[in-house]
Amino acid sequence: MKNIVEKKFNIALTIGDPGGIGPELAAKSIHFLQKKKFPIKIYLLGDIYSFKRALSISGLKIRKSSNLEFINFNHKNISASTFPSKDGGRISYKAILKGYELYKKKIVSAIVTGPISKESLHLAGYKYDGHTGLLAHLCKVKDPTMMLANKKFLTLHVSTHLSLLEAIKKVKKNRIIEIIRIGNNHLKNLGKNNPSIGVCGLNPHAGEKGIFGKEEINEIIPAIKLAKKEGMNITGPISADVIFRDAVDGKYDLIIAQYHDQGHIPVKLLAFDSSINVSLGLPIIRTSVDHGTAFDIAWKNKARSKNMIISILYACRMINFK
Amino acid sequence: MKNIVEKKFNIALTIGDPGGIGPELAAKSIHFLQKKKFPIKIYLLGDIYSFKRALSISGLKIRKSSNLEFINFNHKNISASTFPSKDGGRISYKAILKGYELYKKKIVSAIVTGPISKESLHLAGYKYDGHTGLLAHLCKVKDPTMMLANKKFLTLHVSTHLSLLEAIKKVKKNRIIEIIRIGNNHLKNLGKNNPSIGVCGLNPHAGEKGIFGKEEINEIIPAIKLAKKEGMNITGPISADVIFRDAVDGKYDLIIAQYHDQGHIPVKLLAFDSSINVSLGLPIIRTSVDHGTAFDIAWKNKARSKNMIISILYACRMINFK
Repeated sequence: MKNIVEKKFNIALTIGDPGGIGPELAAKSIHFLQKKKFPIKIYLLGDIYSFKRALSISGLKIRKSSNLEFINFNHKNISASTFPSKDGGRISYKAILKGYELYKKKIVSAIVTGPISKESLHLAGYKYDGHTGLLAHLCKVKDPTMMLANKKFLTLHVSTHLSLLEAIKKVKKNRIIEIIRIGNNHLKNLGKNNPSIGVCGLNPHAGEKGIFGKEEINEIIPAIKLAKKEGMNITGPISADVIFRDAVDGKYDLIIAQYHDQGHIPVKLLAFDSSINVSLGLPIIRTSVDHGTAFDIAWKNKARSKNMIISILYACRMINFK
Repeated sequence: MKNIVEKKFNIALTIGDPGGIGPELAAKSIHFLQKKKFPIKIYLLGDIYSFKRALSISGLKIRKSSNLEFINFNHKNISASTFPSKDGGRISYKAILKGYELYKKKIVSAIVTGPISKESLHLAGYKYDGHTGLLAHLCKVKDPTMMLANKKFLTLHVSTHLSLLEAIKKVKKNRIIEIIRIGNNHLKNLGKNNPSIGVCGLNPHAGEKGIFGKEEINEIIPAIKLAKKEGMNITGPISADVIFRDAVDGKYDLIIAQYHDQGHIPVKLLAFDSSINVSLGLPIIRTSVDHGTAFDIAWKNKARSKNMIISILYACRMINFK
């Protein structure tokens, strides 16, 4: 990874739901980073028994090292192969809480998270929409945002885990300009001057001048005008069935998507095993795989760890530029 | 194209808005079909002056033939390079009307349409949302649907040219089952037994069991259950950021998308120059390119005619199986 200065990174890595592919991802990622001698200390949080079973089914061995510290939350060594489960929800929740605590104490500089199950979380009584919502609550931030990163471009969402009907209500000038500023600053922080930003319309054909909806005229265009006034290199609103092809062709560094699926459909189609998830608008650095627990392929040594490794490296890049 | 029986197909081909790339597409497509000696008679409808200029800028010559008949609607040879324009709207409109008339008189068996501009149409006083809406009006059909076809799978939409807010209101059990039946019948008519159908959720993660929206539980799942009862090979609701990758991998013959962009974003990303648009739920056969007028690249000999050629061949395939 370009631009990474040689120093040691301290990272909290949560394993995620023990019934999913999180343990396998953590096992394979840590094995890879040890092999590459990447200068990192990892605090591994979650169901450590599951982690060890995952190493075993993957046929991998890792070295005992001062650069790897286990913090276990499965004290009774309960079986974690069921899914979704109350235990899985409780263990995943406690691991995230611990990651946040380590961050607050400046023991780690970033949190990288494995996939959790919202169903398990809810079964355990934690009514969060996922990591971003939980971390926002802990950091006392109202409206953070989820960014997807792939090799070619970044995608930032005006809203994520809301019903589509609720998501439309979030398409407001103030929210959109806030998201644009967050994305622009993120890229500038990573050393990109004058990043090129493309903004999706909400409606088909970006509303076709108001024929199919007015949100572009009333909310999105005013936000873009304000961003231009602030000196940003920004274009839009552009029809969502056009803009992502242009981004693939290198036209944009950052896409602003108006709702979850608008950003997730193209990014997952383009880069299923190499796109990652970054929480922005929080005072902490947090990255994650962009997929779910994949219960259906868990514990079969089928899970690929590329996303988690990229998540860890992206977090290091953000620490480096902090 | 497989399965096409040797006979002569009679097709109405509308040039579309003369300010866009329609004339170039028509010129290149007809040149290609003549070269391949494809057994087709084309009634070419629209601004014939633009068509001839397009042949000239493309450096192409076509043969005079009883298999090509021109029906001109630009009687004054007005310049058609402006866009959008009232004249362009009027000419495109009249060409579609003529295509419908030829169909009603059984002179042609299908209408293939070049790209029109909704703005031009509206400037000319025709308040339709596009071809499908206009043809639905002519055929006195209330709610037709737009299907996108690419090499791998078909995508059918519960609604298309509506604001996203209005589109959500269309996500109702009765409408969804109607669309599923139309798609299933279309594939069976094309000779595909027991086609595999995948249905998108409306909300992020297909609602995640009601956590992010109830439309899946209240409307989509009941429609899927009914389709199963009718013997269909159907799965869903599936998260829209997962289902299209599965379709690429061959899991589905048909995807049911809940709104315009949900289907258009992935299909255009996957197959920008080879996906086409088919109107279903109408008593007539109509296919089309799936892109717009592309005013920005018009009259520069840049437009590629692959979509239009595939549109013509798909219409022939539908005629063949009628």
